Amino acid sequence: MTRGRFVSFEGIEGSGKTTQIARLAERWRAEGVPVLVTREPGGTALGESMRRMLLDSRTIDLTAEAELLLFYASRSQNIEEKIRPAVERGDTVICDRFFDASFAYQGYGRGIEQAVIQRLTDLVCREFRPELTVLLDIDPATGLERARRRNRARAREEGRFESEDLGFYERVRDGYLELARRDPARFRVVPALGAVEEVEVRVHGVLAARAHQP
Amino acid sequence: MTRGRFVSFEGIEGSGKTTQIARLAERWRAEGVPVLVTREPGGTALGESMRRMLLDSRTIDLTAEAELLLFYASRSQNIEEKIRPAVERGDTVICDRFFDASFAYQGYGRGIEQAVIQRLTDLVCREFRPELTVLLDIDPATGLERARRRNRARAREEGRFESEDLGFYERVRDGYLELARRDPARFRVVPALGAVEEVEVRVHGVLAARAHQP
Repeated sequence: MTRGRFVSFEGIEGSGKTTQIARLAERWRAEGVPVLVTREPGGTALGESMRRMLLDSRTIDLTAEAELLLFYASRSQNIEEKIRPAVERGDTVICDRFFDASFAYQGYGRGIEQAVIQRLTDLVCREFRPELTVLLDIDPATGLERARRRNRARAREEGRFESEDLGFYERVRDGYLELARRDPARFRVVPALGAVEEVEVRVHGVLAARAHQP
Repeated sequence: MTRGRFVSFEGIEGSGKTTQIARLAERWRAEGVPVLVTREPGGTALGESMRRMLLDSRTIDLTAEAELLLFYASRSQNIEEKIRPAVERGDTVICDRFFDASFAYQGYGRGIEQAVIQRLTDLVCREFRPELTVLLDIDPATGLERARRRNRARAREEGRFESEDLGFYERVRDGYLELARRDPARFRVVPALGAVEEVEVRVHGVLAARAHQP
């Protein structure tokens, strides 16, 4: 059975994931590679409903456990409806956040035990694991400033996470860097400061280096 | 700290839980007992959104894992927002389904491992455990016929579970009975056949017997 590549992008708010993913997908499609871009939370009808609940700034009092479980429910549905069929037909999947985000946000950020998150990952993801994870790393103060400017410009209600304090984002960023240190074979840390085109060159560099590996 | 009672009702579709809970709440309130009635999924704003997703007959392709996780997300929110505050101020809480439903439906019904459900229960419920669980037991064919008649009469869309086949409900009912056998100190199995008033007398009987225990 041919299996497609499965790549995830991670990073805090304002790290430029969505922009970089769009550019990468465009580049790969221009090369004739069939690409599925999906995001978490979201990706499916159910996931998009959950996205509204999870990111809406009016859903203020969600418990940390409910938040974690909603993300994994969305992930389960996204794997079965979108990711598994795409990978099985040989398409390349680019996921805008995957399980690392749960370890970073709900684990390092909100203090839920890593072992709990690992068990949920085993239950829901099974063999679905990105072969490569691009971590767009940015200083939280800069990332949040970018994200808040974007939300204001688009009058978006997706402000629940952006309303967390800087300490939360520092824990999340440090968590991501710790995850990358623990799994260097899978992670590529890419500095996210600079012009979109500069970051794109860096992303392309780490992906091209990977493609040349046996 | 004064703590109120916490009682759950369980049973398959058409077992008459909702009717019996309403009558019990009315009876206790008439005796001056402050009662909170809550239901799962639901009970909170978030839970009611999830209820629509979980019970809507148009949400057909939900994975078993997503379903399980949504129920526990709803439960987490219900405990923190409703059950814990009520129990802590000394109110009596009657819950229309609680964690036993996950063991019965997602465990026995859909085949998810009991150990997985137990770990989610430990994570989300911690010390929140009903002191008494009334299992309204009914033959699935009879229960489903009642539930479907009710849904047609009210033109309700809550038909996702009711569209499962009879074999599913037989596994769920047998699962409930097995749970009751394993925890006889907590469970009271009440036959749900007969007129509402007859079942009410039986429910009152098992609760009154319990109240007289030291």
